[in-house]
Amino acid sequence: MMDNDKKIGSYKYVAEPFHVDFSGKLTLGVLGNHLLNCAGFHSSERGFGIAKLNEDNYTWVLSRLAIELDDLPYQYENFTIQTWVENVYRLFTDRNYAIYDKDDKCIGYARSVWAMINLNTRKPANLIELHGGDISQYIVDKPCPIDKPSRIKVSTTTPITHLEAKYTDIDINGHVNSVCYIEHILDLFPLEKFKYQGVKRFEMAYVAESYYGDKLSFYVDAVDEIEYHIEVKRNDEQVVCRSKIIFNTKK
Amino acid sequence: MMDNDKKIGSYKYVAEPFHVDFSGKLTLGVLGNHLLNCAGFHSSERGFGIAKLNEDNYTWVLSRLAIELDDLPYQYENFTIQTWVENVYRLFTDRNYAIYDKDDKCIGYARSVWAMINLNTRKPANLIELHGGDISQYIVDKPCPIDKPSRIKVSTTTPITHLEAKYTDIDINGHVNSVCYIEHILDLFPLEKFKYQGVKRFEMAYVAESYYGDKLSFYVDAVDEIEYHIEVKRNDEQVVCRSKIIFNTKK
Repeated sequence: MMDNDKKIGSYKYVAEPFHVDFSGKLTLGVLGNHLLNCAGFHSSERGFGIAKLNEDNYTWVLSRLAIELDDLPYQYENFTIQTWVENVYRLFTDRNYAIYDKDDKCIGYARSVWAMINLNTRKPANLIELHGGDISQYIVDKPCPIDKPSRIKVSTTTPITHLEAKYTDIDINGHVNSVCYIEHILDLFPLEKFKYQGVKRFEMAYVAESYYGDKLSFYVDAVDEIEYHIEVKRNDEQVVCRSKIIFNTKK
Repeated sequence: MMDNDKKIGSYKYVAEPFHVDFSGKLTLGVLGNHLLNCAGFHSSERGFGIAKLNEDNYTWVLSRLAIELDDLPYQYENFTIQTWVENVYRLFTDRNYAIYDKDDKCIGYARSVWAMINLNTRKPANLIELHGGDISQYIVDKPCPIDKPSRIKVSTTTPITHLEAKYTDIDINGHVNSVCYIEHILDLFPLEKFKYQGVKRFEMAYVAESYYGDKLSFYVDAVDEIEYHIEVKRNDEQVVCRSKIIFNTKK
């Protein structure tokens, strides 16, 4: 049996000056970027990364992401992200994360759910059969004591704002990239919200792709001063993603 | 005398998937971010970084940046940025850069101009006197065969668009960060411009700070299909920065 050290990927970062917000703490968009990169590193190093999958006409698609935090690294501080596979189902795999500060204290966790799709048919692939069940050997029983991504429902039918998907939003596949949605959603809130409350938990459910020139509208249900449910639609009709933000109680 | 290896800083990167554009090439915003970080690394390693300066109540302020490119790294490719000090004047220092692709071929250069200011008075400091002229010993006579940042003039008085400075725009000093301006300026242009021409040269002149909630308006003089001069104003009056973009001729 493989030991856990080989199964868990560990990646070191430093909080760069243009990656921190007004408070000097790493932004959630940048953290999201790192988490997704770590998934790429971890899977590539173990033979089931996107490059390898592409050879067989498959690719990974991020479905859900949930991040829960006690703290975030401060400008110039080192931090470490660990990632591992928690479960492999037929159509989805659960990949978890732990975030450690400069003193190796765990300051947060994240959960993500991924599907593998066929690049031609865009249909999901069977993860258990693929590569003879290779991925399953990397499953680790490491605790990730945060709730799974939840089902997000938004009921308002009036968007609070909209924007047009621009050049810097678009990734190599011609889609608005997953990190840009996180940033656009954070930008819906006033700076004071981050100053006096800060984000406790952030969830993303990626539903469909949007494209250059699309009008992206943002629908927000404020449950109370803590919890917000957000839906992003393209061109006023198709749901692109949903998000749930839980802020801390006011200091 | 110190040899050039000690004077020139060399930093390795990889083009991350969320840092490349629709064409798979690194975005100029991300390159700008890396260039500014390299300045930080290089100066810190040599004892004249921001942290050291802050102790004496001084800080570095970026005044100008010019980037000229033959190519950019493709997704997942390694690349290297070298940086060095070309000149130290009384009120400014010239820091240059060379960008090398995965095969160590030089694919671009950059020039930057920095001032040092007193954090209390916001007045410029004398760079030649500071630290007993320490910085001057790092001057290197390495070629940087691109034009110096030019004087940018914008004559139009009608902005083509405007936006509000939001949460993710703001840095630890409470200012819209230098990289965000680059991204907002790139987003003024249609994706087709990048697809069929690509950026040959990009210049930024940072004039004044802008703040959270500021209305940023974008004034654009199109000289022809190649060259554009851009001015960004806060709240319709104060010039914040100017930019010049020179695209390649159409393919």
